[in-house]
Amino acid sequence: MDKVKEECGVFGIIENTGKNVAKDIYYGLLALQHRGQESAGMAICDTTGKKGNMCVQKQMGLVSEVFDEDTLSAMNGNIGIGHVRYSTTGLSSLPNAQPIAFQYIKGTLALVHNGNIVNALDIKEKLLQEGSVFNATSDSEVVATLLARQRACCSSIEEAVARTVPSLKGGYAIIVMSPRKLVAARDPFGIKPLCLGRRNNGYVIASESCGLDAVNAQFVRDIRPGEIVSVKGNELSSFTPEAFLNTPKAHCIFEYIYFARLDSTLDGVSVYSSRIKAGRILAGYSPVNADIVTGVPESGITAALGYSMESGIPFTNVFCKNTYVGRTFIKPSRSERENAVRVKLGVIAEAVKDKDIILIDDSIVRGTTIARLIRMLKENGARKVHVRICSPPFLYPCYYGTDVPDNKDLIANRFSEEEIRKRIDADSLCYMRIEDLWKLTGDAGICKACFDGIYPDSKRE
Amino acid sequence: MDKVKEECGVFGIIENTGKNVAKDIYYGLLALQHRGQESAGMAICDTTGKKGNMCVQKQMGLVSEVFDEDTLSAMNGNIGIGHVRYSTTGLSSLPNAQPIAFQYIKGTLALVHNGNIVNALDIKEKLLQEGSVFNATSDSEVVATLLARQRACCSSIEEAVARTVPSLKGGYAIIVMSPRKLVAARDPFGIKPLCLGRRNNGYVIASESCGLDAVNAQFVRDIRPGEIVSVKGNELSSFTPEAFLNTPKAHCIFEYIYFARLDSTLDGVSVYSSRIKAGRILAGYSPVNADIVTGVPESGITAALGYSMESGIPFTNVFCKNTYVGRTFIKPSRSERENAVRVKLGVIAEAVKDKDIILIDDSIVRGTTIARLIRMLKENGARKVHVRICSPPFLYPCYYGTDVPDNKDLIANRFSEEEIRKRIDADSLCYMRIEDLWKLTGDAGICKACFDGIYPDSKRE
Amino acid sequence: MDKVKEECGVFGIIENTGKNVAKDIYYGLLALQHRGQESAGMAICDTTGKKGNMCVQKQMGLVSEVFDEDTLSAMNGNIGIGHVRYSTTGLSSLPNAQPIAFQYIKGTLALVHNGNIVNALDIKEKLLQEGSVFNATSDSEVVATLLARQRACCSSIEEAVARTVPSLKGGYAIIVMSPRKLVAARDPFGIKPLCLGRRNNGYVIASESCGLDAVNAQFVRDIRPGEIVSVKGNELSSFTPEAFLNTPKAHCIFEYIYFARLDSTLDGVSVYSSRIKAGRILAGYSPVNADIVTGVPESGITAALGYSMESGIPFTNVFCKNTYVGRTFIKPSRSERENAVRVKLGVIAEAVKDKDIILIDDSIVRGTTIARLIRMLKENGARKVHVRICSPPFLYPCYYGTDVPDNKDLIANRFSEEEIRKRIDADSLCYMRIEDLWKLTGDAGICKACFDGIYPDSKRE
Amino acid sequence: MDKVKEECGVFGIIENTGKNVAKDIYYGLLALQHRGQESAGMAICDTTGKKGNMCVQKQMGLVSEVFDEDTLSAMNGNIGIGHVRYSTTGLSSLPNAQPIAFQYIKGTLALVHNGNIVNALDIKEKLLQEGSVFNATSDSEVVATLLARQRACCSSIEEAVARTVPSLKGGYAIIVMSPRKLVAARDPFGIKPLCLGRRNNGYVIASESCGLDAVNAQFVRDIRPGEIVSVKGNELSSFTPEAFLNTPKAHCIFEYIYFARLDSTLDGVSVYSSRIKAGRILAGYSPVNADIVTGVPESGITAALGYSMESGIPFTNVFCKNTYVGRTFIKPSRSERENAVRVKLGVIAEAVKDKDIILIDDSIVRGTTIARLIRMLKENGARKVHVRICSPPFLYPCYYGTDVPDNKDLIANRFSEEEIRKRIDADSLCYMRIEDLWKLTGDAGICKACFDGIYPDSKRE
Repeated sequence: MDKVKEECGVFGIIENTGKNVAKDIYYGLLALQHRGQESAGMAICDTTGKKGNMCVQKQMGLVSEVFDEDTLSAMNGNIGIGHVRYSTTGLSSLPNAQPIAFQYIKGTLALVHNGNIVNALDIKEKLLQEGSVFNATSDSEVVATLLARQRACCSSIEEAVARTVPSLKGGYAIIVMSPRKLVAARDPFGIKPLCLGRRNNGYVIASESCGLDAVNAQFVRDIRPGEIVSVKGNELSSFTPEAFLNTPKAHCIFEYIYFARLDSTLDGVSVYSSRIKAGRILAGYSPVNADIVTGVPESGITAALGYSMESGIPFTNVFCKNTYVGRTFIKPSRSERENAVRVKLGVIAEAVKDKDIILIDDSIVRGTTIARLIRMLKENGARKVHVRICSPPFLYPCYYGTDVPDNKDLIANRFSEEEIRKRIDADSLCYMRIEDLWKLTGDAGICKACFDGIYPDSKRE
Repeated sequence: MDKVKEECGVFGIIENTGKNVAKDIYYGLLALQHRGQESAGMAICDTTGKKGNMCVQKQMGLVSEVFDEDTLSAMNGNIGIGHVRYSTTGLSSLPNAQPIAFQYIKGTLALVHNGNIVNALDIKEKLLQEGSVFNATSDSEVVATLLARQRACCSSIEEAVARTVPSLKGGYAIIVMSPRKLVAARDPFGIKPLCLGRRNNGYVIASESCGLDAVNAQFVRDIRPGEIVSVKGNELSSFTPEAFLNTPKAHCIFEYIYFARLDSTLDGVSVYSSRIKAGRILAGYSPVNADIVTGVPESGITAALGYSMESGIPFTNVFCKNTYVGRTFIKPSRSERENAVRVKLGVIAEAVKDKDIILIDDSIVRGTTIARLIRMLKENGARKVHVRICSPPFLYPCYYGTDVPDNKDLIANRFSEEEIRKRIDADSLCYMRIEDLWKLTGDAGICKACFDGIYPDSKRE
Repeated sequence: MDKVKEECGVFGIIENTGKNVAKDIYYGLLALQHRGQESAGMAICDTTGKKGNMCVQKQMGLVSEVFDEDTLSAMNGNIGIGHVRYSTTGLSSLPNAQPIAFQYIKGTLALVHNGNIVNALDIKEKLLQEGSVFNATSDSEVVATLLARQRACCSSIEEAVARTVPSLKGGYAIIVMSPRKLVAARDPFGIKPLCLGRRNNGYVIASESCGLDAVNAQFVRDIRPGEIVSVKGNELSSFTPEAFLNTPKAHCIFEYIYFARLDSTLDGVSVYSSRIKAGRILAGYSPVNADIVTGVPESGITAALGYSMESGIPFTNVFCKNTYVGRTFIKPSRSERENAVRVKLGVIAEAVKDKDIILIDDSIVRGTTIARLIRMLKENGARKVHVRICSPPFLYPCYYGTDVPDNKDLIANRFSEEEIRKRIDADSLCYMRIEDLWKLTGDAGICKACFDGIYPDSKRE
Repeated sequence: MDKVKEECGVFGIIENTGKNVAKDIYYGLLALQHRGQESAGMAICDTTGKKGNMCVQKQMGLVSEVFDEDTLSAMNGNIGIGHVRYSTTGLSSLPNAQPIAFQYIKGTLALVHNGNIVNALDIKEKLLQEGSVFNATSDSEVVATLLARQRACCSSIEEAVARTVPSLKGGYAIIVMSPRKLVAARDPFGIKPLCLGRRNNGYVIASESCGLDAVNAQFVRDIRPGEIVSVKGNELSSFTPEAFLNTPKAHCIFEYIYFARLDSTLDGVSVYSSRIKAGRILAGYSPVNADIVTGVPESGITAALGYSMESGIPFTNVFCKNTYVGRTFIKPSRSERENAVRVKLGVIAEAVKDKDIILIDDSIVRGTTIARLIRMLKENGARKVHVRICSPPFLYPCYYGTDVPDNKDLIANRFSEEEIRKRIDADSLCYMRIEDLWKLTGDAGICKACFDGIYPDSKRE
């Protein structure tokens, strides 16, 4: 499944020993790389130095392409933020890479941002009318300008953030860096994840807990929906704007199903456990006799293990993933497009020959990849392939920063379940039911708008 | 396990429709990339064109770095060979990249080579005395020169190969390309793998069967130990030099344990099956009660599945591999070296907490990585970690092209099994027994010299 | 003479046939490359397309490094502006490259700028207080923001420029591009050059007339000091803000002596003629008997020709310039710094042996280069070297965008003329006299503040 | 004149203090860059280290592109050779770059070579029959193999060179480096230049004397035609094979007219003087009244000065060369090809308006460039343009390493002098007469085969 994409990962760190944090940010971003592979960047400052001396590097490319020993060693400071990004739009691609660093009336700020501000264009229109100019087309620049305006007329950066966020609609996780502090903010629904960790002499903030592990930080807790957390030296302060106090939680359920890394824990729920659970639930639906259960690498594997545990049908791997097929892979010509899947995933013939197979995948978007995998299994001798999907059919767009294809490309919008089964040549097909989705986290406070069209925002208004 | 390395993968193709094969070679090399990541190259010719018009491209780097749309589109022809290489030595690194293309008395040849010619220096000395010059330090240039000399005084390239190979000692898989033909040769013991595939209008030769799958070729058979196979147009001819007829087989057992790709079949045995078998065998050794069995990604996973099948102890994944940590990854400074493993592999805390774990790995070389993984499991709450290893302890060097570290770096040469268990902090430790190794392929014709010091070569003399 | 540097060159073009202008901008910037070698960029728009669809490319490097066939072919449109830049400062080097493109209340604008806004920090402070944010540290971003604010409350971009420029102090040549128009403005003193050309179906604006020649445009006239020129389609309109009407002209004299290209004509005066004139004037000062007169390449050559014409002493070249020594040249280590000049300029021994030589250079900044050249001439057998300099001694900083070294590095600030003569080992030394400078252009309206400390700005206030 | 190209420049150095010579080779190659711009390389050794430890770097590109601080600092040793190359041919472009380093029976050698071995294919055929293989298609590899064969059966590298060179026909300058010595050889006619210099503690060998100047070496003397010079430590030895003793000299006259750098002295004659002389001779042919005399940059300038001295007509520059238009310059599309010259050379209108001009160029190959220059001069107001050419018409190919276009592209092969005059729109046209060519060097021992078809080789046989 390769067509629903998360937009970003954010990372922030402060190290009170004064030790340089450039490499920590590098490792943190590497751990968050699955959240965005198109650009990477970091901004760094020295809290002991003179105000405003901020160093920024950002480029199109993977973390390992953007930073090498030379560029990293040119980044010096003990406070910093970093960002990985999936999509870019606008005048020219570079300006939308993050962090955004900017000068404003009180000095210099930098900002990283995951998510989508639904009313960004409205806010921008207002700022334009007041004479603002924008160099790029990103939401982040809108947030930055709004923040700078607020900061001009209040006493602290935390207060400026607190005045800014109530006017933002949508899902977001933001880290603002002043030359001395990190201030993190999360949208009131908690759509986008954000968590806090601690090291001996400092704090770490990351989109997922795997980012904390990568720099040897202890997980402290998730940033709460709507919460604004500020760290300066060893002091941590937190508050939640009153406007946000009674907002119901709506954590993105697709983070658990697909986006987040298997070893992360988001809002108290292990991603691994939620996928095991998904497999167990699927095992309860229209059970079939089969020789083996398996998953589409990587995101379907853990649910397949869960299915195996629940059903007693043995799990095994039947695909061999080629880890060397990366972003720069030269795709086959149109007439041989079929082959691209073959290059990425090899079938272990020995494991599938004469077998009835249950195949688990996280979701179906266009249906082309699963169809090719089923054909490859059957070409290698599989007798039957029963498909089980960890999520309900995609039917609605996401407004909060996830890149779901247009409606017309979503196979579930054009065909019935039985028609899809036939098109992909599966012997049976089951989706996760919408009413079971909450069981993945054990909590009803989830956003599942892409499946049922009920958006947390509209509930709020 | 990251310190025993295969040296190369080879690939050859002929397409009688006249269709360009550059992209086929690209996909074939991508599929063989696990056999060598330091250089990649291909040579291409047009069998319909004028003799000798050969095009060569080779560079340090991964297949995806060496070739892009531009460089590929500059390669035109319907016959070609390709190569991926692990190590390089010599005057300067580039000349040792392959293919080697050279002019000789009868025209132009190109050659790719996996393995190590044990008596290369002796042969080279002789050639130097006869006035030969060498631009690089590789065995391959020695083979090329020898071949050219033979070709000068015999009637076909097949005959020249047949006269050349008996003087080569060691393990090798070679593909020679003339402007019209591919000629493949395999060492008489069959130490290095090589197989043959067929497409509608041509032939494919590759180190592993996964290379055939990548270009949609049907597996025909393995090239036999000592066999010389020639393909020209749609004709295939084969013979085995008499000197090789009674040589006993000695397939490298470590290809099955670690080197080869899981979806390949080598000499009639599926790599997947042999690893499942390894797990089953280990399950029979000093059985322990445990909650879960798991493997070190990727090479330990399949054996762990086999162990689970045999023992009934459930399998699960406990590590999350970061696929973005590649060759250019900036390593932590010495004082934080510990951290490098943490960046590459995250532990799924939920899966290991309060668990007794059986952990399978393919081999132990230095023992440092397994020690770190055990520590990470225990830090995340694992109660016990029982280690099972799919191969016996490494005790001897390999002379056939595998890069085993020096004796002094092999932990098994310095410590007893019990000492190693303590050093890595495992609760128990078992290695595969040497006497059981043949069971992985079901045939006694294997080379296990790195474990027992018995080299096929010396048996022969 | 390599230490006084111009900051920028600007170029703009509109082509009413609809023909793509990317290559024209490329050639225009190549012709202006001598005005700045550190970054290059262009912005392009399609006047027939939908508003605001602007494409920008800019990078550190020479024009030929920033643009290749691929990047150029990605730029499509029939209106565009371009920029070459010498120096960069600020948060990170890239943001200061030009053009600056930005969104504002009425759409999209792009801007290129040569010169220095003396009161930029004051304006910026004011804008910051009004809530503006800045991504870079350049003057240009200040101009852009000011312009956007004005544009919000007036009816045309021309009017916005007209309201903006009176608040700018300093020397500048600016080209603003809206999706339909080019608007050019020049500082009221005319310190920085800017001229207008015409092609069959469009207009061209460039810092120097050589930029017009490069795209086959006919020179129409110089943009007048303080004038604002707007071109849209085939209409050209012009006006001068009333505040500027009585400002005395003050064209930078150093453009003629050194910066501008020999084949340019600035404000009605050919650069070539002014240098010939400089040589003629120098020939009238303390005449000496000599065998030959020569110049330091390239900027001293033409004055040497003028000296020869006036004095009758034959001119010849005595230095051979290595045109392959470019920006990336690896400099000798400190102990061999002497050698760098030797690598750049070879002496033609045959031409200097046993000769009394008159050597012309455009200026003396630190005095180190001229000293080395004189030593090289004498090592090659020159008997006497009489130095004549086309400008008076540098004594004052330039506030208008020319990078003159700090006072302490200016040799004329530390030593008398006779002391300098001895330090450089010249047999005689004459500078152009301040009172003769106006003769180079034949008009007293020049800025010669770096020589006499009289700044046009202060005259104005 | 941009279509006759020299093939290579060679450089060698030994520094007995043990000081690293990598930077010296870099500066030497920079000084020789005009002799070849397509590839650059160097090989370095440490005479105090263990034999054979040779380091080689070579790449396509200019010296400044192939070497940077990093690559240079990786080259260590006190003896080395370097090479710049114009053309490349063969299997793949890189193998033909030089130096060629190779192992042979007595150790390691490296070799650089300027020129063309006329009988290379014959020699190669013989070597192929004896079983040699070749990785590239260059003459240099043939020379290397021949040398290795000789070295196997004689007592010193000097002797091997002495036995090798008599079998080579053509023009060549070769430097061979063993790990302790440099051995230089020049063809018996002295077609290609080669000279020797001395520094306090070592020797330098270079194609032209400007290469010696670049590293502060004193010119000692030219290597004599046919001479073999060996330097080891501070010892220099020299001898000339008997077969070469009575060969008449035939120095390439076009080195003086065009190839060599103005500040070089070749075989006792200053390039500058020979060009001044060319101008003086031309001034004696069909004299015309004119206002100014000028030259096409760079190669026509010096002859124009000579013409001015002889005729009394004042010299001035009328073209302004854009030094930023380099190899990667994007050429105008076919319909605007005219424009390419305009981008490279600007006309100084002031200098040409209403003038009768004498324009000197080194040669005419296709005639297109000179035609465009004349048109540009007339467009800028020149009344008359009288063309004078420093060489006779090109009529014959060069077999000694100069890349003269095919006969059919040589305008002089298709049109009479008067027809050419009309085609280029000159008001008069004169070529240097063949019978006057010897006057440029004052010695009849020149090769002028490209003008008269009399080849030194054929005289010899």
